[in-house]
Amino acid sequence: MAITDHPITAKAHTNIALVKYWGKLDDQLIIPQNDSLSITLDEFYTQTAVQFSPSLAADKVVFDDQTLSATDSLRVRTFLDQVRALAHIDYRASVTTQNFVPTAAGLASSASGFAALAGAASRAAGLHLNRQDLSRLARRGSGSATRSIFGGFVAWQQGHDDATSYAYPIDEQPTWDIAVVALVLTAKQKKISSRVGMKRAVETSPFYPAWITASQTDFKTMKTAIETQDFELLGHTAEQNAMRMHALTLSSDPTFTYFNADSIKAMNMVRDLRLRGISCYFTMDAGPNVKIICHGSDAKRIAQHFQTAFGQDHVLVTRPGAGISISD
Amino acid sequence: MAITDHPITAKAHTNIALVKYWGKLDDQLIIPQNDSLSITLDEFYTQTAVQFSPSLAADKVVFDDQTLSATDSLRVRTFLDQVRALAHIDYRASVTTQNFVPTAAGLASSASGFAALAGAASRAAGLHLNRQDLSRLARRGSGSATRSIFGGFVAWQQGHDDATSYAYPIDEQPTWDIAVVALVLTAKQKKISSRVGMKRAVETSPFYPAWITASQTDFKTMKTAIETQDFELLGHTAEQNAMRMHALTLSSDPTFTYFNADSIKAMNMVRDLRLRGISCYFTMDAGPNVKIICHGSDAKRIAQHFQTAFGQDHVLVTRPGAGISISD
Repeated sequence: MAITDHPITAKAHTNIALVKYWGKLDDQLIIPQNDSLSITLDEFYTQTAVQFSPSLAADKVVFDDQTLSATDSLRVRTFLDQVRALAHIDYRASVTTQNFVPTAAGLASSASGFAALAGAASRAAGLHLNRQDLSRLARRGSGSATRSIFGGFVAWQQGHDDATSYAYPIDEQPTWDIAVVALVLTAKQKKISSRVGMKRAVETSPFYPAWITASQTDFKTMKTAIETQDFELLGHTAEQNAMRMHALTLSSDPTFTYFNADSIKAMNMVRDLRLRGISCYFTMDAGPNVKIICHGSDAKRIAQHFQTAFGQDHVLVTRPGAGISISD
Repeated sequence: MAITDHPITAKAHTNIALVKYWGKLDDQLIIPQNDSLSITLDEFYTQTAVQFSPSLAADKVVFDDQTLSATDSLRVRTFLDQVRALAHIDYRASVTTQNFVPTAAGLASSASGFAALAGAASRAAGLHLNRQDLSRLARRGSGSATRSIFGGFVAWQQGHDDATSYAYPIDEQPTWDIAVVALVLTAKQKKISSRVGMKRAVETSPFYPAWITASQTDFKTMKTAIETQDFELLGHTAEQNAMRMHALTLSSDPTFTYFNADSIKAMNMVRDLRLRGISCYFTMDAGPNVKIICHGSDAKRIAQHFQTAFGQDHVLVTRPGAGISISD
């Protein structure tokens, strides 16, 4: 095992959760409170190159052509420390990241970001991790990154420690016609990070224990929906699960919400489309953006409908994406 | 005991709940799932005149100068049947109601409506009910009407049957400086009635049992806040309680919300005012309107702030109101 003499590049896609991860059992190891399930998206990804070198005095992190300050790169450097410990090396690294996720889109760029970083940094450190171990490593950077190692439909089993909490694929190359229309709606309110938001829910929401029970049921239902390719069951369960997660923010103390005015409008538009016979469902994460799960064959007209309301540039159509790829 | 030879007029004010009623234990008797607590408002009221007469062949209900059809008056006629049973009479009645609550304001006109009807109809039927029994009677028309019998701060004790479920005053004439700024925001979405909404929460929200426990705690906290005139405690508890009620709508199956785009804007504006040092809190009921609880001395400038955003006619300032009054 030795560090590589050239940069290693990894590409990982972001994912959106159909059964949400919202709360940690272990803050340090990032062990979640429940199993979660996501779909990896093809349009949004992060590409990261890493090289460790004896000649570097400090880690250097370049993000979208900007060199990050020591403060801004802290989370990346902490993650590199974990890779160094794993590989038994003590070299500093040069990290160059390009993010192909619209900034401020709230589309979980930390998921693709830490998945790509885990892939590139581990290989550059001389490690050849299998995908399960890669997902465990990515988990240490950001919980949702655990799932971005795999393509298509992915489950993250909760586990109870570092060894048992990892992702696995459920259907890596879905043969059914599924698409996600992502609406990028600007947040005017100062955002509460998912890290802070979920911690507040765990500590203050009286609904939290019931959420765990309900989400474990949703996880089983969602697996069935994917196995039987039951779109209505998948969509309905995803919508319910998302709104129960957002009910946790409302029921936290102090109460807060990721909804903005446009989120409410967009969710009502999805309900109206359903009343008109177009099968589609919404989900939302730790930001105001609404993602619409639909049949691929309906994606274009659904996108046009929302472009009329929110503008051309605010609507993106995406489909199931691939798992991580790492250069040799 | 005999019916009166002239119309009896009763005037009752609406109320907004600081600790919400959201769910019935008994649909027929309207026994709630938890204790609730409200403030009666002076600006919004219903005035109702009732006279029973041997010469009437059918109940006649005039609502805001419009004679209601048999279908539209069903709920009123069913209520009159209960009054008739109580008074052992079988005469039909003439009911004339004027509603001084902005229509579609979602300001619980059924609360003032059934409180006024209970007061006028019972007296017109020859009954002289004390206020406790009047609140029990009003309860049969609409749960929240139970509390509109009294002025100021009012509790509705859950009880376990018709005899034990009634309201009582906590502080009928508050000596502290409290006001409510009501924002009337139009609902574009078809409304889900509170009756349907709470039934769905009881039957489908996994968070419902925890809601009951939390609201009983809120009830005790709110009583303390009123007794100690602790405005911050009252406001914070009311805001938390309201958002937990709305978390029930999100977590119901199918999920729904009473928020519209303007509700989100208005709640964010209240949060911003707080950050600027103006102590105020929001609450919401089964509609998009936001009610802001504030110090009376701040009410005017808060109202002006919201008038700039939503228009002059959409903002109303109101203060603690009186209990029911019944003509002789």
